[in-house]
Amino acid sequence: MYILILAGGAGTRLWPLSRQLSPKQLLPITGGETLVQKTVKRVLPITSIENIFFATNHAYGEMIKEQVAELLPRSIIAEPSGKNTAPCIGLAAMQMNQLDPDAVMVSLHSDHFIADEEGFRQSILAAAEVAKQGYLVTLGITPDKAETGYGYIQRGESVGTYNKHDAYQVSQFLEKPNLETAQKFVASGDYYWNSGMFIWQISTLLEAFKEHMPDFYTQLEQMDEAIKAGRPIDPIWEQIRPESIDVGILEQVSKVAVIPVDFGWNDVGSWTAIYEINQQDEQDNVVLNAEHFNLDSHGVLIQGNNRLIATIGLEDVVIVDTDDGLLICKKDRSQDTKKIVEWLKANNRQELL
Amino acid sequence: MYILILAGGAGTRLWPLSRQLSPKQLLPITGGETLVQKTVKRVLPITSIENIFFATNHAYGEMIKEQVAELLPRSIIAEPSGKNTAPCIGLAAMQMNQLDPDAVMVSLHSDHFIADEEGFRQSILAAAEVAKQGYLVTLGITPDKAETGYGYIQRGESVGTYNKHDAYQVSQFLEKPNLETAQKFVASGDYYWNSGMFIWQISTLLEAFKEHMPDFYTQLEQMDEAIKAGRPIDPIWEQIRPESIDVGILEQVSKVAVIPVDFGWNDVGSWTAIYEINQQDEQDNVVLNAEHFNLDSHGVLIQGNNRLIATIGLEDVVIVDTDDGLLICKKDRSQDTKKIVEWLKANNRQELL
Repeated sequence: MYILILAGGAGTRLWPLSRQLSPKQLLPITGGETLVQKTVKRVLPITSIENIFFATNHAYGEMIKEQVAELLPRSIIAEPSGKNTAPCIGLAAMQMNQLDPDAVMVSLHSDHFIADEEGFRQSILAAAEVAKQGYLVTLGITPDKAETGYGYIQRGESVGTYNKHDAYQVSQFLEKPNLETAQKFVASGDYYWNSGMFIWQISTLLEAFKEHMPDFYTQLEQMDEAIKAGRPIDPIWEQIRPESIDVGILEQVSKVAVIPVDFGWNDVGSWTAIYEINQQDEQDNVVLNAEHFNLDSHGVLIQGNNRLIATIGLEDVVIVDTDDGLLICKKDRSQDTKKIVEWLKANNRQELL
Repeated sequence: MYILILAGGAGTRLWPLSRQLSPKQLLPITGGETLVQKTVKRVLPITSIENIFFATNHAYGEMIKEQVAELLPRSIIAEPSGKNTAPCIGLAAMQMNQLDPDAVMVSLHSDHFIADEEGFRQSILAAAEVAKQGYLVTLGITPDKAETGYGYIQRGESVGTYNKHDAYQVSQFLEKPNLETAQKFVASGDYYWNSGMFIWQISTLLEAFKEHMPDFYTQLEQMDEAIKAGRPIDPIWEQIRPESIDVGILEQVSKVAVIPVDFGWNDVGSWTAIYEINQQDEQDNVVLNAEHFNLDSHGVLIQGNNRLIATIGLEDVVIVDTDDGLLICKKDRSQDTKKIVEWLKANNRQELL
C-alpha cells in the first residue's frame, strides 16, 4: 500500500498564522507535532515510511524533508506549479506504478485532523479491499450538521461489507449546496461529505486516466520518459490543463464506491475548526500558546504569540496574534479571513502573505 | 497666577498602554504631544512657564522635565509618596506662598482633554476674579449624559457674573450617584460634574487648611522649615494622613463657588473616552497607530502598535496592542481594565505593570 499525501495548499483561511512560506500543514496548529507529521504518524501502523509520498511544491518539499527525516528522497514529488489534484495524483501514480503496479494507492490531504485514528486506519483497510474489486473508493464523512462548505456524495446500491464497513456504489457527486439543500441531504441519511480521501488500485486509476483524461495520460507517459532519461518534466507540466481528480475522474467513472465513516474528521479549514477540535475551558474558551486573563468572555479562540492577552466581555471571537499581524474576528465570520489574504495579494503586501 | 498640575496618577484604566513607568499623562495618547505637554500649552497664554508647577513623584518628575524642557527646577514638587490631593496641593501652595501670597493658584490635572481651549482659559480667568472675592472656586462641567463615574456639584444662589461667566455658591458636593440619581441630576439642570479643576487665592486656601485640617497645616509649616533648612521633608510627609482636597477642604468650607463650563472636557479616564475624543471613520471606528483592514466592524477603537490589525464583524470592541500585552475588551466594559491591573499586582507581575 502506497500513501500519497497532498501538501501543496497555502491555508489562507488560517491567516495570519498560516503564511505562504509556512502554511498550516507545516505548523503545529493542533498542538504538538505539525499536521504533516501527524498525518504520517497516523498511517505508519498500516504501511512503512518508504511507501509514503508527498505531492507538493519545491519549497514545501524541503520543509517536509526536515519535518519527516526518515522519508526517502524519491518520496517528495515536487509539482513545478499548482495544477489542482488530478495532475499531481497522476504523476504520483505513475511513479508508484514503477514500484508495484498491483499495489493499492491511498490519496490523503496533509492538513486534516482525525480524532479516532484507529477508526481511520480500519476504514482505509476496508477501502483497500473494495479497491481490489476494481473500484475507485472514497471515504464519505457522515455529516453532523448541514455544512454548506463541502461537496456531498449520494450513496446508491450496496456493494457489500468489507472489514466491518459497508460500501456503496456512488450515485452522484454534488457541489457545495445551499443551506436548504444541505439540510435535506443531512435529513435523508443518504449523503456524505466528500473528504477528498481516495483509495484505488494504481492500475485502476491509470486506466481511468487513459479513458477519461486521454490528453493528460499522454502527458503522463511523456513525463515518465523524461524522468527515466533524467530530463526535467517542467516543459510538459506547463502544458497540462488544471483539473481536480473529482471532476476529471471520479465523476466520469461508473465503478466508484463510497464507504461511510465517522472517525471525528475535521478539515482544519478555518479558525472555527481549530476552536472545535480543541478542548474548551469552563468558559468555553480555547487558549493556545498564550497567557489569558479573562473577565466574562465566552466562546473565544485565542491563538497566541507568547504575550499576555486580556479579554473582557467578548462572545464568540477569534484572536490570532503573530509578530506582524493581528486578526480579531467574529467566530462565525472566520471563513472571511481569505478575503484578507486576497486584499494583501491585490496590494502586493508580500511581507504579510 | 500660579498653575499647579497634578501628575502623580498611574492611569491603570488605560492598561496595557499606560504603565507604572509610562503613565497616560506622559504618553501622546490623544495624538501629537503628550497630555502633560498639552496641559502646559493650554495654560501658557494666560501665565508664563516659570509660574507652572507639577506635583508628582520622583520618577515622573524626571520625565516631565524631559517633556517640558523650559520648566524651572523649582517647578517639580516631588511627593515622597502618594497621599491623595490635599497634601500635594498644600505643599505646592506653601511654596507658591513664598513667591507671592496674594497670587491666584489654579490646580489642574495633567491628564484631561479639552476641546475648546480658549473657552477653558476664559473660564479660568473668570474663576480667578471670583477667587479674588475670597471664594474657593471649582469649574463644574455641564453634564451631557447621566454619568455615574463622576462626583456631582449642586449649585445654589448666584454670586454674580465674572468675565461673562455666571458663578454660583456651591450647595453641596455629591459622591458618584447611581444611574437613577444621575438621571435626576442631569434633568434638573442644577448639577455639574466635579472636574477637579480648582481656583483660589493662596491665602484663602492656606487659611482653610489652618481651620479645617489643622494637623496637616502644622505639618505644612514643618515641611516649610525643613525645605528652608535644606532638610528632606520625607520624615514629616510619611506622617501625613492621606486626604482629598474635596473632602478635606471644599466640603468643609462655606465660601465655595462653582462656575458652570462647557468646553468639551474629557477626563481620558478609559478607552471609551479615547474613542469619544477622536475622529471616527465612516464605519464609526477609531484607529490610532495601526494599519487596519476591516470587514463589517463598527464602533471599534484600535490603539495599535505599528502592526496590521484585521477585524471582521466586530461591534463596539476596544483593541489595544503593545509589545508585551494585548487587550481586547467590549467597549462598555472598558472601566474593568483596572481589574486586570489589580490582578497583575496581586500576582506580582511587575513586568506588565
